[in-house]
Amino acid sequence: MDDAAFLQSVEQTRAAVERRLAQLVPAECQGPEGLTGAVRYALLAPGKRFRPILTLLTARDFGAVDGAALDVACACEMVHAASLILDDLPSMDDAGLRRGRATTHRAFDEATAILAAVGLLNRAFGVIAEDSGLSTDLRNRLSARLSEAVGFRGLTAGQARDLGRRGGALSNDEIDLLNHQKTGVLLVAAAQAGALVAGVEDARLTAIGEFARRIGLAFQIRDDLIDAEALAGAGAPEGKDLGKDAGMPTLITSLGIEGARRTMEGYLAAAEAALAEAGGGESAWRFAHGLFRDRKVAA
Amino acid sequence: MDDAAFLQSVEQTRAAVERRLAQLVPAECQGPEGLTGAVRYALLAPGKRFRPILTLLTARDFGAVDGAALDVACACEMVHAASLILDDLPSMDDAGLRRGRATTHRAFDEATAILAAVGLLNRAFGVIAEDSGLSTDLRNRLSARLSEAVGFRGLTAGQARDLGRRGGALSNDEIDLLNHQKTGVLLVAAAQAGALVAGVEDARLTAIGEFARRIGLAFQIRDDLIDAEALAGAGAPEGKDLGKDAGMPTLITSLGIEGARRTMEGYLAAAEAALAEAGGGESAWRFAHGLFRDRKVAA
Repeated sequence: MDDAAFLQSVEQTRAAVERRLAQLVPAECQGPEGLTGAVRYALLAPGKRFRPILTLLTARDFGAVDGAALDVACACEMVHAASLILDDLPSMDDAGLRRGRATTHRAFDEATAILAAVGLLNRAFGVIAEDSGLSTDLRNRLSARLSEAVGFRGLTAGQARDLGRRGGALSNDEIDLLNHQKTGVLLVAAAQAGALVAGVEDARLTAIGEFARRIGLAFQIRDDLIDAEALAGAGAPEGKDLGKDAGMPTLITSLGIEGARRTMEGYLAAAEAALAEAGGGESAWRFAHGLFRDRKVAA
Repeated sequence: MDDAAFLQSVEQTRAAVERRLAQLVPAECQGPEGLTGAVRYALLAPGKRFRPILTLLTARDFGAVDGAALDVACACEMVHAASLILDDLPSMDDAGLRRGRATTHRAFDEATAILAAVGLLNRAFGVIAEDSGLSTDLRNRLSARLSEAVGFRGLTAGQARDLGRRGGALSNDEIDLLNHQKTGVLLVAAAQAGALVAGVEDARLTAIGEFARRIGLAFQIRDDLIDAEALAGAGAPEGKDLGKDAGMPTLITSLGIEGARRTMEGYLAAAEAALAEAGGGESAWRFAHGLFRDRKVAA
């Protein structure tokens, strides 16, 4: 498939995700005033849809029936949207802008934003439990994987660790753990969800998780490089506040721009190697790798 | 079983729940500093354990294997603990005391409290998905029921509605809907979870849900009566703040103390009738009804 055809197929996948997301949460007129509006505002905001597309491409690469992973892909995006709402709260990053628009607690209010995040996380599990296209065994495994990714060794822990690092010095290993828990764990769950729907097991599933983990680490460095570039003069990037992130330890602090860039390239190469070990995942790799060319990174 | 033996069996059930809850969340030394401490602080605080005991007694009443419903019972308590953390937040009820102790965001901090609530909700779904003693089909149904109870027609909606009522006049039906979504939906899910583990289906399951819904409505009136009694002179009840609840419309506002008490008695009678329709649930009724005698209610 040439690049244009591939990009078009990714766009079709993204559109399918966005249509389905809009169906899986209540209409604005349903439920208490504000709440469902905030849910839709946060979930349907323009976004890369990195996680659900990763789920769907991984599922396709490893032989799943077309569309079988759509709902679990959407569940991953719901969890991601919930985590962004929480990250931005006044008690956390206190961010005013996200994806170029007011953050959810600014557009609505803080209590509504918290309830929207809780509602989205909760809905993700409901969507999986009700996905009658999948076997009950598979739904349980997906639910358990998602819960693990969000849990006390996953996103929730990553966010707590992130709040804890304010002002503290971290080793490179601690930064990697933080970056993995804040971003990587959900990418791992998203890719593995696609693979599970395709019936992939054991060692190959582990290798697919490693691919996603390394992509996540590379992605976090990319974000840090973009922030560093912006701080060096170009203004806040991509319509988000630098907010409290500014001045916090990242790999750039310890490795410098050039060292961080080399580390990122190393993670990308290792991600590709993990997929080779899994014996598939060509379009997942092509998509993920392509994101690193979306925007020129400080070099 | 005489009253003393029954009370003793309830105490044994409560102790089993508390032992299992302590096992199902990470130790304080695991995970980022503060987070798991806050989770344990909120979850293991002294409490009635109304929901998990309701699950376990309902399961027993309808013939489940002993202990088969223990983990799903604990999942219900995790959701309840999460909802209490959120209710108390500065952006919601801004409460300083809960169960006679500092609320979670006061004992830790706001961000940690929010993450603890999210972690507990998330863990509830993980516990169900991993409950290998239950069939995968049953786990899915329990997960779907729990998600429905927490969702945009359940707890999350109830909390949003509660925030919205500040200063507004509500009809008695609106107050009932609010009370149901804030309290009843999780009681319904807890009782039905026990019944589902026991293999109860269809009309009997619906009747068991009705029992719990009516108990929940009666319970909310009981709380309002206790608050009204306290406001009339006895000080804040049961170690909790009256906080922002004071002055909000309740059934007492429209029906008066005596009318509210009669309505509560009506709900209790209807709850008992629903169990008669379900053809069982003697110990669930005995336990729930007993809670209304725990403390003399303003009469």
